This record gives sequence, C-alpha cells and structure tokens, in this order.
Amino acid sequence: MDVISVIRTKRDRGELSPEQIDWVIDAYTRGVVADEQMSALAMAILLNGMNRTEIARWTAAMIASGERMNFDALSRPTADKHSTGGVGDKITLPLAPLVAACGAAVPQLSGRGLGHTGGTLDKLESIPGWRALLSNEEMMHVLDTTGAVICAAGDGLAPADKKLYALRDVTGTVEAIPLIASSIMSKKIAEGTGSLVLDVKVGSGAFMKNIEDARELARTMVGLGTDSGVKTVALLTDMSTPLGLTAGNALEVRESVEVLAGGGPADVVELTIALAKEMLDAAGIKDADPAKALADGSAMDHWRRMIAAQGGDPDAALPVAREQHVVTAPESGVLTRLDAYGVGVGAWRLGAGRARKEDPVQAGAGIELHAKPGDTVTAGQPLMTLHTDTPEKFDYALAALDGSFDIAAAGTSFSATPIVLDRIA
Amino acid sequence: MDVISVIRTKRDRGELSPEQIDWVIDAYTRGVVADEQMSALAMAILLNGMNRTEIARWTAAMIASGERMNFDALSRPTADKHSTGGVGDKITLPLAPLVAACGAAVPQLSGRGLGHTGGTLDKLESIPGWRALLSNEEMMHVLDTTGAVICAAGDGLAPADKKLYALRDVTGTVEAIPLIASSIMSKKIAEGTGSLVLDVKVGSGAFMKNIEDARELARTMVGLGTDSGVKTVALLTDMSTPLGLTAGNALEVRESVEVLAGGGPADVVELTIALAKEMLDAAGIKDADPAKALADGSAMDHWRRMIAAQGGDPDAALPVAREQHVVTAPESGVLTRLDAYGVGVGAWRLGAGRARKEDPVQAGAGIELHAKPGDTVTAGQPLMTLHTDTPEKFDYALAALDGSFDIAAAGTSFSATPIVLDRIA
Repeated sequence: MDVISVIRTKRDRGELSPEQIDWVIDAYTRGVVADEQMSALAMAILLNGMNRTEIARWTAAMIASGERMNFDALSRPTADKHSTGGVGDKITLPLAPLVAACGAAVPQLSGRGLGHTGGTLDKLESIPGWRALLSNEEMMHVLDTTGAVICAAGDGLAPADKKLYALRDVTGTVEAIPLIASSIMSKKIAEGTGSLVLDVKVGSGAFMKNIEDARELARTMVGLGTDSGVKTVALLTDMSTPLGLTAGNALEVRESVEVLAGGGPADVVELTIALAKEMLDAAGIKDADPAKALADGSAMDHWRRMIAAQGGDPDAALPVAREQHVVTAPESGVLTRLDAYGVGVGAWRLGAGRARKEDPVQAGAGIELHAKPGDTVTAGQPLMTLHTDTPEKFDYALAALDGSFDIAAAGTSFSATPIVLDRIA
Repeated sequence: MDVISVIRTKRDRGELSPEQIDWVIDAYTRGVVADEQMSALAMAILLNGMNRTEIARWTAAMIASGERMNFDALSRPTADKHSTGGVGDKITLPLAPLVAACGAAVPQLSGRGLGHTGGTLDKLESIPGWRALLSNEEMMHVLDTTGAVICAAGDGLAPADKKLYALRDVTGTVEAIPLIASSIMSKKIAEGTGSLVLDVKVGSGAFMKNIEDARELARTMVGLGTDSGVKTVALLTDMSTPLGLTAGNALEVRESVEVLAGGGPADVVELTIALAKEMLDAAGIKDADPAKALADGSAMDHWRRMIAAQGGDPDAALPVAREQHVVTAPESGVLTRLDAYGVGVGAWRLGAGRARKEDPVQAGAGIELHAKPGDTVTAGQPLMTLHTDTPEKFDYALAALDGSFDIAAAGTSFSATPIVLDRIA
C-alpha cells in the first residue's frame, strides 16, 4: 500500500477501498503518511466527495485509532448532544443538567471555541474553580453521582481525528461534509453513548450556510450513528441570528443560569426543551417533562451539583469585562435582521474567542443584545452592549458589526424564522 | 494576505489574483507557507485548473524566486530543447552537439531520472570522468568554447519550483497541466535561452497519455515562452514505444554515439534532425543542414569537445552490466506492439532508474531491444536483452515486461505511428 496511489484514487474520482482507508488513517496517525500527503488527500475528498460506504469506513478507522469508552456500568441510559456550533449557542449548559434531572445520564465531552463560534469549555471555565480536564475515572464519578458531566474529551479518543482536524484547520479543508461528519461521529461513537441528538445549525453563523448542505450533513451523521448502534436523531436549527441575548463566555453562563432558574430568552428555552425531549426519547425515557424540571428547580439542582463536582462554585460572582461600549439604534422601526456571523465575529474580536487554538480567551468579553429580530426599536435606544478587557478592540469589533443589522420602517411586517427547521431520524 | 484564503479561492473555483500568486509563491519559498498548505493548494489547482493569466503569473513568480541567467554576451544565438520525458529518450545527447555544429549555442540544463523515465545527466555520468555539476562560470566557458553544454541546473534557478516539484512528487499532484507547464517554463525562462523547442511526448511511456492533454500542455508552454520573449515551438512526438533500441544509461550513450557517427536507429535519427531543424529555425540560423553535420563528422567533433570540456573521456570504454538475460519471442509473426511504459519500468527495476531522488543508478543496467513494432520475428529469436548488476532483479523486471508486447500472425498489416505527431507554434 502506498500513499500516492491512495491520493490518486480519490483525485481521479475513484472509490477508496476499505484497505486503503484503514491503511491511510493508521499510517497518518503513526506519522508514516506525512501532513502534506494527508492534506492533498483531504482536498481531493473535499472536491470529489466520498460515498456512504467510504465515510462509514473512514469513521470506523478513526474510531479504531484510539480507545472506546463504555457506559454500560451506569444504572441509567446515556444520552448525548452535539451541536455543529453557532453564535450564542450555550444550550449544552442548561440542557445537560436538565436531561439528567429527567433521568438520563449525560456524558457531554465538549470542545473549545475557534473562530467566531464559542466553545462550551471556554464558557464553563468562566466559573471560578471549574475544571474541564478530568481523568476517565473522575468523569465516570461525576456522571454517576450528578447525572451529567461536561468535560474535555480525553486524548485517547480518536487520535486520528485530532491530528486530522488540526491539519484541516490550516489547509482550507474544513468544509467537507464527509470529513465533518466522520470527525464528529468518530468521537461520539468512541465515547460510547447509547443515544445521540445532533443539533445541526443552518445559517450565516453556522458552518452550513444553507439547508441543503445541513440536511446532507445531518443525514450522513444519522446514518453513521445508526449503523454503529447509536440511536441518533438530528434537528436542523436556525443560526441566522444569535441564540438568546448573549455571545461570550461569562455572559452565556449567566443566561444559562437564568434558563435553569425558569426564565431566560424564549428561543433558548424552546431549543433546550426541544433537544431535551429528543434526548429523553432516544434514551427510552418516557413521561419525563423537561419544562416542569426547569420550573420546579430540579434542573438547577443538577446544575449546581455538576458544577461543584468539577471544582466550580455555582454561587461565585462571574467575571465582568473592564470596559463597555453601547451600540444604539441609528433610526426607529422594526429590527428585521441581526446577523449571527457579524455578532460572532464581533464577540470574537472583543476577546471572547480565539484565532489560534493556543490563544487565551477573556471570560467577561462578548456582546449582550438588547433587541432581537422582530422587535420594535427607537432611534438612540441601546441595541447591544460590547464587553471587553481590551478597549482598543472596540473599533475592530464595530467593523465586524457594520452592516450586521437592518431596521425597517415601523409597521413593516416581519415573519420570524422558527428555531427548529427540520428533524432527521 | 493569508494562505487559507488563497487555498479557499482555488478550492471554490475562483481565479487567483496576481497578488495572491506572488504572495503564496514567495511565502512558500521562505517557509512561511507550510508544505501541507501548499499541497492542498496544488491539489485544488490540479482539480480546478488555472486560466492562462494565472499560469503566466504563477510562472513569473517562480522565476522571480531566484536568479536569471543571461547569454547576451555570447557571439551566437542560443537554442535550447526540453523533453517532457520518455523511455529511451537520449535525444539531447546527439542533438546538443549537432545544433552547436550548425552554429547555435546550446545551453542544455538538464535533470536526473525519476521513476520509469531516464535522466540526461544520469546517462552522461556513465562516461568515465564526466561531471554534471558546473559553476555558472564553468558552464559559460564550456558553452562559449564548444558551442554546447549539458549540465545540472544550478540551485539559484527558480528555487520555488525545486521545492514545489519535490512536494508534488510525494503528494499525487504531479499530473496538473498548469503546474507541469509552469515548472518547465520557469526554469527555461530563468535560464535565459533566446529560443526553445519543446518535445512533448505522448503515449504510454509519457506523462501525457493522450494527444489532447499533450496539445493543451504544449499550447500552454508555447504561450508562456512567447509571452516572456522566448521564441518557443513544440513538437508532439510519439512515446507509445521506446525511442531507438536502448533504455538505460550507458546503453543510450552508446546509441547516441552511433547516431553522431552517422548511423543509429532510424527513429532516433529522424527525431534528432527534426528537433535540430526547429532549434536552428527558432534561433534564426538559416541554410544549416543537420543531416550533413551528422554525416560529415562535425557533430561528432562537437560531442567529443563538449564531453572532454566537462572532464569526460570520449574514447573510454563505457560500463557494461555484470549480468544479462535474453527474452525471446514466444511465437513467430509480426511485432505489433512494444509498450514504452513496460520497457521503462523494466529498465528502472533493473537498476537504470531510481525510486527516490537520493538513490544511485547503475550505469550499465537497462534494456536493449532487438525488434521494434512492425518487425517480423521468429519464435525463439531474441526480442530484448536485459542488463543489470543485480540479477536478483530479473524476475521483478520480467514482471513489468509481462504483457508489454504483442505478436500477430505473419502477414498481419501494421501501420507505424509517425514520430512527429503535431507541431504547435
């Protein structure tokens, strides 16, 4: 087997054989296939595609590159959720303790943010004392005792994917549906969850800009999960505008706690409950009522225990950025558009996100929204507040926000985009 | 400027801007753009192409990465030839002294073989004492005093191309017409020749397997040369069967000397004279008669002086391989096919070529042909003799030759493929 013949097969629009796929993933993980060879193959896959058989084998080979976890010892069924990433997407924070409160075990191995989308671990790290890095034993202990755990995926899960993802990130080969699907699913299948709900974001703030691509990605992932014995469902959800009223680490924790307290923005509550129902259904838990678990404080109790089990103080004051700048409405009317990508880039530039994976993030930085699409606004009223410890970045963030919203004449009709656009099972 | 946006432009079928091209070639040469990034871009170029404007700028940027030579001080017009490479293609050896004998200066910067095609420098190095590595001053001196020089291109010419070629070789991105054309032409234009004749090979033993691809490559290169002020002409020539009766280093030197002595195989003589006429015409030399220069010994005189000027002994015995194996005709009839690729791979496996650029080659190894397509053969007569110092490789070479020839019943009509298939100017 040699790597050039593998590259040529895909370059010339052929189908990679199972042997070619197993060999190239293993050889790349061991360093026998070089980065420059794998990036050429990744570009050929991006441009020429892979069929369902190839994607399944590719995923299996990445799973086989590392360890597989197993939750069979738990007394409760496991349910996990994965979001393809968006702006203001803090859903994991209220969702994991909510689903735990309803009777499932939620092993939520999460990542950090890169670019304009935030990362769950970055958000939780704004809670004083909270630790993302747990050993496998610690993770199992937190999961077993609190019903939910949100932590960093260990290095042992799908190491081929870790190496390949870092390579794709610097070679313009991220946006390939077969590679996105196999990357996500190899980690989730190796993690050992019994059921999985995928939140596939669609819109300007998401990887998938249109619903056709999102549907293809969702179908591919649902197929991979199902074929591997994981009960898998996908919701396609709107990411044309930010979720909720905050984008930024501590800002989003605050909003998540509001949801757990029975309040919070309607769109965050709606999506949290929709995903909770799917997770509980996939886990085979009937008669649970997520809305009630939010209202009666049981979800909040699980949150507090989960945070405390990882060293966090759920009562500690959250970090606040040193400087604020308010953006006001330039005219009166109806806010008809508030672009997720613009807000995401703005929050990133304020310090909420990172350009390189080794960069730090600011806990307090981000954007707080005072109006959402459909709201009536008056000239001069606050539209958003920018938060940062580095005020020299305000202009840079404002440039990203330039043109990111539209205000139409008062009385203009506005039809809201639903949060859940489609369901694929 | 950042490399991911350059990669994405080509990945998404856009046109690279002059600024993007200048930047990426310079940054790659300086090591700012990494190999894995350039290989992703090379694959995107291979699959999505470049237009004429992009190819011209890409070539100019590679030329600008190094020094440019200048032959204006010579009293004679310069003419160079480049072959895209084939099996048994020793034409440069008789051609350079022949064209020098007819009045042009021939600066022939050449390469080494890789894979199944031989390299001019490897062939000449089988002559005892001959040196391929000359300083620029030595090169000018040999050219000025003998009318021709065949030597290795200096490291200063188009270093971006050297680095990119080595990368393409290991990433399955060699077979891209824009990259092949710009690689060849950047070196030839930087070398400073006034005129250039391209021998674009077509057939199983060539990079270009079909005439449409060869024509596109030839047109692209002629356009690049012409736009840079180099008078450029291309001949498309047949490489479905080996040129002449030998493939291998010393074997090909012997055959070249036969041609210079007024003999040699008809196809080698025909192509040598055809290319000589094109070179002389492009250099503006009229009334020269290459056939006469072969017959009257003046080409041979130039050969002897050229070889001696680089330390070689034109009278020394050439190396002979230690072991021979004769392949006989399995039946009587007409030899209707003798595949260039099969013979090329066979000679390579016997030790005439190398698998990696740091490997040595055997001077005496190779294949001597006793029949060519169209010849009548008798069962049991020698078809070819294999030569090697490593007889354990005979079986490996025979495997490559298996199925590489067809013998049809005696009397089967056979129409020979002409050597020169087309001319593009």
